Amino acid sequence: MIMEPLHLTRCSINTATLGHREPLDVTIDRIARAGFGGLAPWRHEVEAADVNRIARQIRALELKVTGYCRSTYFPASTHEQRLANIQSNVRALNDAAELGAQCFVMVVGGLPEGSRDLSAARTQVRDGIGAFLDEARKIGVPLAIEPLHPMYAGERSVINTIDQANAIARELDPHNDGFLGVAVDVYHCWWDPQLETAIASLGTDDRMLAYHVSDWLVPTTDMLLDRGMMGDGVIDLKRFRQSVEKAGYAGMVEVEVFSRDNWWKLPPDEVLQTCAARLQSVC
Amino acid sequence: MIMEPLHLTRCSINTATLGHREPLDVTIDRIARAGFGGLAPWRHEVEAADVNRIARQIRALELKVTGYCRSTYFPASTHEQRLANIQSNVRALNDAAELGAQCFVMVVGGLPEGSRDLSAARTQVRDGIGAFLDEARKIGVPLAIEPLHPMYAGERSVINTIDQANAIARELDPHNDGFLGVAVDVYHCWWDPQLETAIASLGTDDRMLAYHVSDWLVPTTDMLLDRGMMGDGVIDLKRFRQSVEKAGYAGMVEVEVFSRDNWWKLPPDEVLQTCAARLQSVC
Repeated sequence: MIMEPLHLTRCSINTATLGHREPLDVTIDRIARAGFGGLAPWRHEVEAADVNRIARQIRALELKVTGYCRSTYFPASTHEQRLANIQSNVRALNDAAELGAQCFVMVVGGLPEGSRDLSAARTQVRDGIGAFLDEARKIGVPLAIEPLHPMYAGERSVINTIDQANAIARELDPHNDGFLGVAVDVYHCWWDPQLETAIASLGTDDRMLAYHVSDWLVPTTDMLLDRGMMGDGVIDLKRFRQSVEKAGYAGMVEVEVFSRDNWWKLPPDEVLQTCAARLQSVC
Repeated sequence: MIMEPLHLTRCSINTATLGHREPLDVTIDRIARAGFGGLAPWRHEVEAADVNRIARQIRALELKVTGYCRSTYFPASTHEQRLANIQSNVRALNDAAELGAQCFVMVVGGLPEGSRDLSAARTQVRDGIGAFLDEARKIGVPLAIEPLHPMYAGERSVINTIDQANAIARELDPHNDGFLGVAVDVYHCWWDPQLETAIASLGTDDRMLAYHVSDWLVPTTDMLLDRGMMGDGVIDLKRFRQSVEKAGYAGMVEVEVFSRDNWWKLPPDEVLQTCAARLQSVC
């Protein structure tokens, strides 16, 4: 398999990879200085700063914003709360637009407190995205549904496969005007027996809005905060990239490593150097 | 949804639920005394005892053996090791026959050491089961492929959904003479967006050989040893049982709770009483 090595201008850093230890403007400067072409910031960082100033900094550095993280969860026990969740997402979407984000990353939420009704929660997610989609069109930021690993189905996301996310996109937006698609994260999807066909379908439908990389460690010691740096785990990252490129994806490759006990303890510039080296060798 | 409460004679205890703290003969007596109709023992327990004596004890107590746990992993880096793994499984299968086990539980194994080739590991699993199946027919014990939760794809099982397990069964044994099927464990499968249709297909194919219950805790603090007692988590167990019964499953319901920091610390009889109560109230 012959693959072009990734050029860093095609690569982006999700700021979570650095552990959110510094103010966002410092992080942005580091990412630009290291030669990356983009970043994906989080709401709590942007909201703690001045979104207008952050947007100007990003533009001045000519960085792309490969995603804005992330949606308020959709499911809730009451109708009022579900509406409030959508309103919260509309506010974030306005910030995403100001930042020039290529997509708003939709981590959709798990079961509402006290519920065991997965099917109802999935319906709430579909309906919530349906109600939100018109806002996305008005505001001009595409929504990227990110399927999360099945181990997060209880608490974080009842959308757990690419096919499931794509089915929602097709149902809500059958003509695909570019405002509803899927974010593919290798960490969440690498195990899926349907992975190749699911990615191919995303390509056919032109729904792939983002591509996130990290690695699955063996053993994994924490279900949330023990992701591996690319190359340190068992995901065949070159084969994965080959699949997404074969499906027509020509967008950015975003690094998103949650690693409380390892990478988040190292100096940010060292983490960025490692990301750069691994992106160019194993991805 | 109206469901018959489970009678304990239809219920079985996987011995792991008691934490393997006592010799198997003591555990078997406890399970019978508590009124359960069956058990599922593990190889290391049986092999540490006298299989013939254990088999006589089980017959005398009129307990069913709902499964024998579990297969040696199939994938390996060398052909010799893969053959040795099958031979190890053949030996276990003879013990399963002596115990009168309704099936041999096949946890198929993850990626071989140093490999990132999930597709190759899956092929090794299919080929290994294929080579093993004739032995199962000769020895007279059905093989139950147990799909494991995707979070175990790296280390324990590259078979991660019911549909994937059933596809292997169909491929290797298209005419279904009763020696290759699937063990369905709610812990591994509850999140699956294809769950209802996958179970229905299993029913149509008459491939469902076992049904295991426990619960998914929110939060889950350990990826292996923090399963919940039925009713303590977020799995809709009544709906799950309704699906499997609608698909024609009329076999035993086996409790399999790995719970190092909770149930494994409590007195075995108390754990069994709780299993009995929960089986009859929430399952």
